Amino acid sequence: MIRIGVVGYGYWGPNIARAASELENAQVGAIADLSAPALDRAGRRHPSASLVQDWRDLVADTAIDAVIVATPVETHFDIAMAALKAGKHVLVEKPMAETPAKAAALVDEAARRQKILMVDHTFVYTPAIQAIRGMIDAGDIGDIYYYDSTRINLGLFQRDVNVIWDLAVHDFAIMDHLLDSKAAAISATAAAFLPNSPENMAHLTVYHENGALSHLNVNWMSPVKIRQTLIGGSRRMVIYDDMQTSEKVKVYDRGASMEDAYERRVNYRLGDMWAPALSSKEALLTEMQEFVRCIETGARPLTDGEGGLRVVKLLDAASRSTRLRGQPIELFALREAS
Amino acid sequence: MIRIGVVGYGYWGPNIARAASELENAQVGAIADLSAPALDRAGRRHPSASLVQDWRDLVADTAIDAVIVATPVETHFDIAMAALKAGKHVLVEKPMAETPAKAAALVDEAARRQKILMVDHTFVYTPAIQAIRGMIDAGDIGDIYYYDSTRINLGLFQRDVNVIWDLAVHDFAIMDHLLDSKAAAISATAAAFLPNSPENMAHLTVYHENGALSHLNVNWMSPVKIRQTLIGGSRRMVIYDDMQTSEKVKVYDRGASMEDAYERRVNYRLGDMWAPALSSKEALLTEMQEFVRCIETGARPLTDGEGGLRVVKLLDAASRSTRLRGQPIELFALREAS
Amino acid sequence: MIRIGVVGYGYWGPNIARAASELENAQVGAIADLSAPALDRAGRRHPSASLVQDWRDLVADTAIDAVIVATPVETHFDIAMAALKAGKHVLVEKPMAETPAKAAALVDEAARRQKILMVDHTFVYTPAIQAIRGMIDAGDIGDIYYYDSTRINLGLFQRDVNVIWDLAVHDFAIMDHLLDSKAAAISATAAAFLPNSPENMAHLTVYHENGALSHLNVNWMSPVKIRQTLIGGSRRMVIYDDMQTSEKVKVYDRGASMEDAYERRVNYRLGDMWAPALSSKEALLTEMQEFVRCIETGARPLTDGEGGLRVVKLLDAASRSTRLRGQPIELFALREAS
Amino acid sequence: MIRIGVVGYGYWGPNIARAASELENAQVGAIADLSAPALDRAGRRHPSASLVQDWRDLVADTAIDAVIVATPVETHFDIAMAALKAGKHVLVEKPMAETPAKAAALVDEAARRQKILMVDHTFVYTPAIQAIRGMIDAGDIGDIYYYDSTRINLGLFQRDVNVIWDLAVHDFAIMDHLLDSKAAAISATAAAFLPNSPENMAHLTVYHENGALSHLNVNWMSPVKIRQTLIGGSRRMVIYDDMQTSEKVKVYDRGASMEDAYERRVNYRLGDMWAPALSSKEALLTEMQEFVRCIETGARPLTDGEGGLRVVKLLDAASRSTRLRGQPIELFALREAS
Repeated sequence: MIRIGVVGYGYWGPNIARAASELENAQVGAIADLSAPALDRAGRRHPSASLVQDWRDLVADTAIDAVIVATPVETHFDIAMAALKAGKHVLVEKPMAETPAKAAALVDEAARRQKILMVDHTFVYTPAIQAIRGMIDAGDIGDIYYYDSTRINLGLFQRDVNVIWDLAVHDFAIMDHLLDSKAAAISATAAAFLPNSPENMAHLTVYHENGALSHLNVNWMSPVKIRQTLIGGSRRMVIYDDMQTSEKVKVYDRGASMEDAYERRVNYRLGDMWAPALSSKEALLTEMQEFVRCIETGARPLTDGEGGLRVVKLLDAASRSTRLRGQPIELFALREAS
Repeated sequence: MIRIGVVGYGYWGPNIARAASELENAQVGAIADLSAPALDRAGRRHPSASLVQDWRDLVADTAIDAVIVATPVETHFDIAMAALKAGKHVLVEKPMAETPAKAAALVDEAARRQKILMVDHTFVYTPAIQAIRGMIDAGDIGDIYYYDSTRINLGLFQRDVNVIWDLAVHDFAIMDHLLDSKAAAISATAAAFLPNSPENMAHLTVYHENGALSHLNVNWMSPVKIRQTLIGGSRRMVIYDDMQTSEKVKVYDRGASMEDAYERRVNYRLGDMWAPALSSKEALLTEMQEFVRCIETGARPLTDGEGGLRVVKLLDAASRSTRLRGQPIELFALREAS
Repeated sequence: MIRIGVVGYGYWGPNIARAASELENAQVGAIADLSAPALDRAGRRHPSASLVQDWRDLVADTAIDAVIVATPVETHFDIAMAALKAGKHVLVEKPMAETPAKAAALVDEAARRQKILMVDHTFVYTPAIQAIRGMIDAGDIGDIYYYDSTRINLGLFQRDVNVIWDLAVHDFAIMDHLLDSKAAAISATAAAFLPNSPENMAHLTVYHENGALSHLNVNWMSPVKIRQTLIGGSRRMVIYDDMQTSEKVKVYDRGASMEDAYERRVNYRLGDMWAPALSSKEALLTEMQEFVRCIETGARPLTDGEGGLRVVKLLDAASRSTRLRGQPIELFALREAS
Repeated sequence: MIRIGVVGYGYWGPNIARAASELENAQVGAIADLSAPALDRAGRRHPSASLVQDWRDLVADTAIDAVIVATPVETHFDIAMAALKAGKHVLVEKPMAETPAKAAALVDEAARRQKILMVDHTFVYTPAIQAIRGMIDAGDIGDIYYYDSTRINLGLFQRDVNVIWDLAVHDFAIMDHLLDSKAAAISATAAAFLPNSPENMAHLTVYHENGALSHLNVNWMSPVKIRQTLIGGSRRMVIYDDMQTSEKVKVYDRGASMEDAYERRVNYRLGDMWAPALSSKEALLTEMQEFVRCIETGARPLTDGEGGLRVVKLLDAASRSTRLRGQPIELFALREAS
């Protein structure tokens, strides 16, 4: 029985603790949060967990095998590093850290101590993304030409994190899982429309080493909520629309091309479309099972620290490109240096 | 009665000739096309028009007052310049020319000869865009923060024109009409997925002088056809979805903001939504009426040569930025130099 | 402080108990359920409530002021009648009873004892229906010509209740609230496609006394989930689409009519459309507040026993018409007789 | 070369004549219309056709082999009967006649003279309906449980034809083609909301001999245009949405059923969905080819006079049921008697 400690019981922590409590071979052994009301709520839902205000007490608790870090991003490094040094396995909420250097240091520490370091890239564990990954593995999609995502809505203007770190992080995590070709360069543009607010709208293009192109459109100030990703392949094309209650994933054959002699151009038509039935299993539960499986077997998590580091590098490079009005940032050097 | 000559009776020319033939104070006096079958079709539908294969004969026809150029873009300059020099008023299909220098030369020639030079930016004459322009003029939208357009579909891979010149040209024309702040710089990224084809997917960000941001997503290889533009303003937000048969334009109030103390962020909600009934008048007819009105009164067309030139400059700068992986191209110098 | 007893802690009871627990001037004093695991769950969420297996013990509890009946429909009458006779106020889940006679007996008993008798017609308390009722009261819709609802999905084939009692009951409750003209007759058709199952598809037409027409399409075997109601009025038309996350209610002006002389017919066009922002308040909480308000003030609930009786009469008449292949059932006699 | 005469050049006649003119082995030999301007238009588009105002002249023209009747419904019988008696093959616009007796007389006359009698049930020739028919033939759908169609919009209030004869006729024609089990009885309800107008809203249920159920919702006064048909089968379910530009036909697997022990009910889930690519061939051209093929080979048309008669019987019975508030009309006797 693996005993899990959860640090942070604010917005996301309760979901993680609830999912962890549903595991067969693990239990929530401790919960830490600075807020007394948050600890009260935690105690009512997890009566057998010990409750502490200072996360250092949780990390020092020898009865705890693994620590889940669900705190604001600027605290991830200190908590995760301390937990690793205390010999715990660690799962960190995304983004893994606020700089590539800190993320790389966590990866190194985990490797040195042979502990599991996993990042909470939840979308990777959704039935939709898993179905798409399965199609790619089966060769149904062919070579991937592009990944084009729109992730916009009206809502939260965060103060300490811009829209790239808030929303694009999801797509970077999905791309890291789906696209086998690594990112070579990134060009990003952004704008902040409200005073004293970070950027609330951004557009990012990622150049992949094999010529594929990814593009992300993220915006906190859209009148409609859109969560739509197009994936274009040499054999088929995919639409992943997370706002649909059914038919979240649609796969399109490309019909025979027709030559239009008069206008000197090639014309493509759509072929059949297919929408696979998706599992209704909760992504967070799948993710927690992966964490426990890796702790038990020493396997490398699907969303390991290396992947978390790659995502942080993309976030960091994107932010730098926005300040240069889209000037491309090469990613190769970064990869080598870290 | 203004006598109009139409050069080019291929894909778009028949539509223009048909619209011109519906005008009360104008008639189609001549049609030129290299193709004999095309001239045959033209003759059956416009029995009173003279038919010529060489456009030079049409331009030399003293009975013709105005020339509409509906030929491939690389021929626009020669035909339009000859027509202006022959003292005709000219309407050129978009894009106006394949280089800013040629477009500027046409503008200068028209000014020197005091002839109408108009560009066929058809979308500007649609009821949807006219309704949006009306709301902006009435102050309903407030300051425009962003224009974000998705114009993608599966279909024509043209050989001589890339997706920017084929699709983004529509948005540049609409932006030129709706956004009062001029473009200051552009960053564009693109990719070509098929051999021997020009770029078929591109993303363009335009920085406006007042801080507004425009973004265009154009793609010939999308499994779905999307024609959707979001316009974010300080007072209201607009969605213009040209694929809808009704409710093409929706206007959203922004609801009261709510402070979320726990998460330190500002939260916006949507207010009421309103979709104005739109006229069903054909854009092309409105455009032809504008052409004739300007010829008769000497007024400046809504889509004049200057606007056509600005659009060509944007197309040209976008293409250059794509070759530099998104490096921003400043537009100010271009404006001064031309 | 009003002390509420909840009978039935299966599918719907927990929601009702949770909503009741959020009231300021009421509390959940007792919960009854035959199932020991259900009582366990109830105890964890409502630690201060007394827990009993036999509802008779709850009804006999003198500390309880009001009883909410959330049990299978065939038990509603016995429990509600006993509670009324014990001097409790009563809220009954819909449908109020399985026969008009039993529903009428409950109405009579409540009147005799001057107790509140309310029916859980939850949809009446949704922000969408309350917004529509507000528009009707303001005269925005004009005379209502028709109410046309589609309520279909794939899913539950219940064994003891057919699709009319399961789904059409919602529309009857909404119609009872929105349409001022009473039902005069009903014609209903239905079919059962699976062996040993009740009818899973039905179509019902209600003739109103003033000439308005209501129609309901209910189906447990549709590949898509639809929850869409059209309301046609002499001034405006409304679409209420409960599957939309935003814009659940849209109101359409009717444009000017055009006479089509050639085809001898009148042509209508759509005018502007308007979608009001809706409150996000939970319907169940509004309903519980109404229950408590009526207990405290003696006011008549928005969804009182009389309304519950009218709905049961419609359900009963609809079922009879289906057995006669749509032969109309007059409702006037029923109203008088009961 | 078959020479076709077209009677009626108003709304639909020009489309039929244009389609007929595209046939390889037929030509438009004559056109009749009372209106001189209509004949003018006809002459410009069909310069080799003879033009007459009186249809009797066209029917008497010995150079004409086949007559297409595209006139108001009340004139169908006289023209079609005269054409048959003159030895012509006949294609009649839908509905075939305004009474079952007249329709039956045409069927008898055609049989007696061994001429082709075909009815213009255009939808039967659409790629969507042909694809659905193909799936049914292949056994993909299984036994058909129901056909449920919504055909509503805002628009034409015709003066001489009610909404059943205007819109439901399309569904009756489609049902006659897709459903192998004949109609046994019909129950229909309707209302007229405008003075001096025929019924503009109706709901029709058709009982089939094998227990299947069809339902039609037709309305001229809906704020939205809907053209959606659900077909429920024992193996799969189909949605046919004619308003979609792509994915008009979707086929759904039914997932494994789940038993919900607590609530005593059976639960179905959706399985995979599949949308076949459809041909873009025009239905009217396919229909004209069928007419000519049958004339040349003596084959029975897909939409023959018998089918036209069955549709008229349904229209007639539906109208009678509406006057009895939905009382069911048995169709068996009608079938025998005619």
